[in-house]
Amino acid sequence: MSDLPKKISIKEEGPREGFQYERGPISTARKIELIDALSRTGLKSIATVSFVNPKRVPGMADAEQVIAGITPNPDVTYSALALNDQGIERALATKRVKVGGAILLVATDTFAIKNLNKNKAEQLAAQPSMIEMVTRHGLKIDTVGIMAAFGCNYEGIVAPQTVLDLIAEGIVVAKDNGVTIKRVSLADTMGHATPYHGKKLVGIVRDRYPDIEVVLHLHDTRGMGIANVFAGMEMGVTHFDASVAGLGGCPFASNAGAAGNVCTEDVVFMCDEIGIETGVSLDALIECAELAEDIVGHPLPGSVMKGGSLKKLRAKMSAAAE
Amino acid sequence: MSDLPKKISIKEEGPREGFQYERGPISTARKIELIDALSRTGLKSIATVSFVNPKRVPGMADAEQVIAGITPNPDVTYSALALNDQGIERALATKRVKVGGAILLVATDTFAIKNLNKNKAEQLAAQPSMIEMVTRHGLKIDTVGIMAAFGCNYEGIVAPQTVLDLIAEGIVVAKDNGVTIKRVSLADTMGHATPYHGKKLVGIVRDRYPDIEVVLHLHDTRGMGIANVFAGMEMGVTHFDASVAGLGGCPFASNAGAAGNVCTEDVVFMCDEIGIETGVSLDALIECAELAEDIVGHPLPGSVMKGGSLKKLRAKMSAAAE
Repeated sequence: MSDLPKKISIKEEGPREGFQYERGPISTARKIELIDALSRTGLKSIATVSFVNPKRVPGMADAEQVIAGITPNPDVTYSALALNDQGIERALATKRVKVGGAILLVATDTFAIKNLNKNKAEQLAAQPSMIEMVTRHGLKIDTVGIMAAFGCNYEGIVAPQTVLDLIAEGIVVAKDNGVTIKRVSLADTMGHATPYHGKKLVGIVRDRYPDIEVVLHLHDTRGMGIANVFAGMEMGVTHFDASVAGLGGCPFASNAGAAGNVCTEDVVFMCDEIGIETGVSLDALIECAELAEDIVGHPLPGSVMKGGSLKKLRAKMSAAAE
Repeated sequence: MSDLPKKISIKEEGPREGFQYERGPISTARKIELIDALSRTGLKSIATVSFVNPKRVPGMADAEQVIAGITPNPDVTYSALALNDQGIERALATKRVKVGGAILLVATDTFAIKNLNKNKAEQLAAQPSMIEMVTRHGLKIDTVGIMAAFGCNYEGIVAPQTVLDLIAEGIVVAKDNGVTIKRVSLADTMGHATPYHGKKLVGIVRDRYPDIEVVLHLHDTRGMGIANVFAGMEMGVTHFDASVAGLGGCPFASNAGAAGNVCTEDVVFMCDEIGIETGVSLDALIECAELAEDIVGHPLPGSVMKGGSLKKLRAKMSAAAE
């Protein structure tokens, strides 16, 4: 139990994951409303939009307008996804969002081909020009992100050694191109991890790279998200990606759909109760979760937004007892 | 990790919790259909109905007809709830269900009064006549069950010492009345537990009573259910109550409503993936979860029924590769 961290940081993925995933259309004004509400909860890092081809991702066609419309909180880092020169230039032109940061590698050939149209060798071969492009824009790279690190819908079980090898290759290609890796992000992209496997992989990675920070990006496809966060914290992980209300997933959806990130307010609730600092107000976050449901127009998977805050319940008890 | 058990047993609570909770009405035939389907999954213990006052619990008015209609599987223990002589007699008359078994104690005065119209002292004082009644019918008692063991909506935090004291008092009252306690069931009745607190309380109880089996009855009100099951298994717990599809809860419900047991098929999925034996077929259970949704007529909280079995996914991959 003593392994639990005193505090963790959460990167809020809800707006970008949610707005991209939802059938919508969601108005620009409502996207701004959610990002601004999230920026007042104490969250320090919010993934906002993707600067990608609007023909391929229509839900992100208004990325510039969304960023222009927010009321920036100086304590918050707003990030955006950009995958090519044009995307980076669009993002930089807003002067408000952070882009770049990661060498992203997919752990299996089949998913790499589906996702990037490159096999694993080709995706590694593409990194030098990606690093060159990102650094040419004055942006920093410090992270290797491994997608499908805990399992793959196309290849099944992913061996920890496969992940270790890929991290090593990512670090080498970074070094060869003048970049130092400080973080490894392990993504359970398709929700295959159990807390048992989570602990195992995180343990192996931390043993091999004790000086590199581990970030967990967990999808809750099979209900293991919170258990995996707790397992990660027990292994000393202090950085998690999460999504308000579980945005990006949907409790009714078909198999492919029920794939949101682990729910931010459920993570914050757990940490609050245990006494692990997150810097985030649970009450404010629950209001954001309710706002997110209102914006997408259907129920979202989060639990604490329905079950309610216990701190609030206890405060009511104290008030009633006085 | 080596503390994880090789196998666990699950008591299915779905029919009784669900049929009691749902607004319904649910036809007798459909209740029978679900119980029979569950009895063919490998589950060895199914809580079916309550023999209680039909005026107070209309959803259980057809308890006799449900039990008369099932096709008993000789490998399954069907249990029912009965709280007084009349209920026990009704249950015994069916010749098919097990009743009795537990000294049930509520950990806080306020909830004891709300739930039983007795404070904690009064509920203990009522046990000798309860034990006499149950044993008079030839039934066995071997369990002390502590409700609200992890927290209470009326009194907030419940100290582990309070739970320990109540278990000790339960064991004494049992012994004084000729009954030996072999199990302690810790119920997170209102969904307050985190895996941190779960481990702590289970650890304290197991340290104090190393020869007594611990059962966890966990509600998923705030999304901590699966994390709490894993935490319990890490502490050596091998008996869990669970509810197919999370029956008894509802993803839309108001605070009070989102209170189902941890979802059976999500527990079985996690155990399957880790290699912990449950004796239950995940595929058959997912079909039961879909049946349960069809019967209640609205989405239920289970995750794996939406996210899908990974074993099945891997089998498809192998078949495609051949």
